[in-house]
Amino acid sequence: MTRGGDTRAEPSVRVLGVDPGTAVTGWGLVERRDGRVGHLAHGAVMTARCPTLAAKLATIHAALAELCVTWRPDVLALEQNFVGRNVQSAFRLGEVRGVALLAAAAAGVGVAEYPPATVKLAVTGTGRAEKEQVQRAIARELRVTERLVPDAADALAIALCHLYSVRLTTVLAAAGGTRRGVAALDRR
Amino acid sequence: MTRGGDTRAEPSVRVLGVDPGTAVTGWGLVERRDGRVGHLAHGAVMTARCPTLAAKLATIHAALAELCVTWRPDVLALEQNFVGRNVQSAFRLGEVRGVALLAAAAAGVGVAEYPPATVKLAVTGTGRAEKEQVQRAIARELRVTERLVPDAADALAIALCHLYSVRLTTVLAAAGGTRRGVAALDRR
Repeated sequence: MTRGGDTRAEPSVRVLGVDPGTAVTGWGLVERRDGRVGHLAHGAVMTARCPTLAAKLATIHAALAELCVTWRPDVLALEQNFVGRNVQSAFRLGEVRGVALLAAAAAGVGVAEYPPATVKLAVTGTGRAEKEQVQRAIARELRVTERLVPDAADALAIALCHLYSVRLTTVLAAAGGTRRGVAALDRR
Repeated sequence: MTRGGDTRAEPSVRVLGVDPGTAVTGWGLVERRDGRVGHLAHGAVMTARCPTLAAKLATIHAALAELCVTWRPDVLALEQNFVGRNVQSAFRLGEVRGVALLAAAAAGVGVAEYPPATVKLAVTGTGRAEKEQVQRAIARELRVTERLVPDAADALAIALCHLYSVRLTTVLAAAGGTRRGVAALDRR
């Protein structure tokens, strides 16, 4: 029976956040274990020097497939709703998203997507945070002292957003609430 | 030495044309052998009933990867420059393009892209041809008597466009010309 104030251990969750790009694809791995959020790893796949688009996509796919096999994340998290982009850049970004989703599917890893404003809100408390504000919040929360490359920081922010969303869902369920609370966050 | 009016046999070329879509991805295989254009196979990958986007992409990727392995095409041909689409549909289409390009890269198959108007021009003689006009031209050229599903017909048109482009390049080279003739077709 689920009760308010349930003290049982939360299930651990491991998330691979991905910030796709044709030149640089950032990635970041975080997990919640025993109620604590921890940083596992992060990095960036650099593809600007790949000779063709197909080679770029193959490189990104291989790197993400390898991360899925090595780290066995529960979820691969991405941003959604890329408003304000032009059609050509949407195509290029879609191509990278496609191979990221494929890597997740092949490894049996679930996929979660969050609007950019939700990611900022979850990490900084405001949906209109600047990039530097997001990076400082990530570094503080994950106790990362090295300077993060922007794409890896964005990927860690997306991964953290998923952890917070799962946490909120768990807390709401324990309190007899529903997941609608997460959607409400979006409208703040 | 290359001469005008060279009568040596043209190299044979096999092309897999792909018309990507999240619900239906058409494909068509054609080849030129001993100077004759022939139809090999065509079909469509239906993914409307796949439960998730990742599952759709995995299904499309598996089908195209299988076609690349079974038929060993020299080139996978796609349309480029998707003007007039909105950003969201560009993302969705980009995702399917990404896994198509990945299937080609993994099988060592080259990629060629042609603007939609070039495909129409190559197949019908006008860059402003209607869909039905393209389908009739394809059926006539390839001597296909069955009714083609539109996505497979589009894929065959893209594949044929590549064959014609290669043929033009070969003829121009034999005549001492350059591939600029292909670009000129675009501006007609």
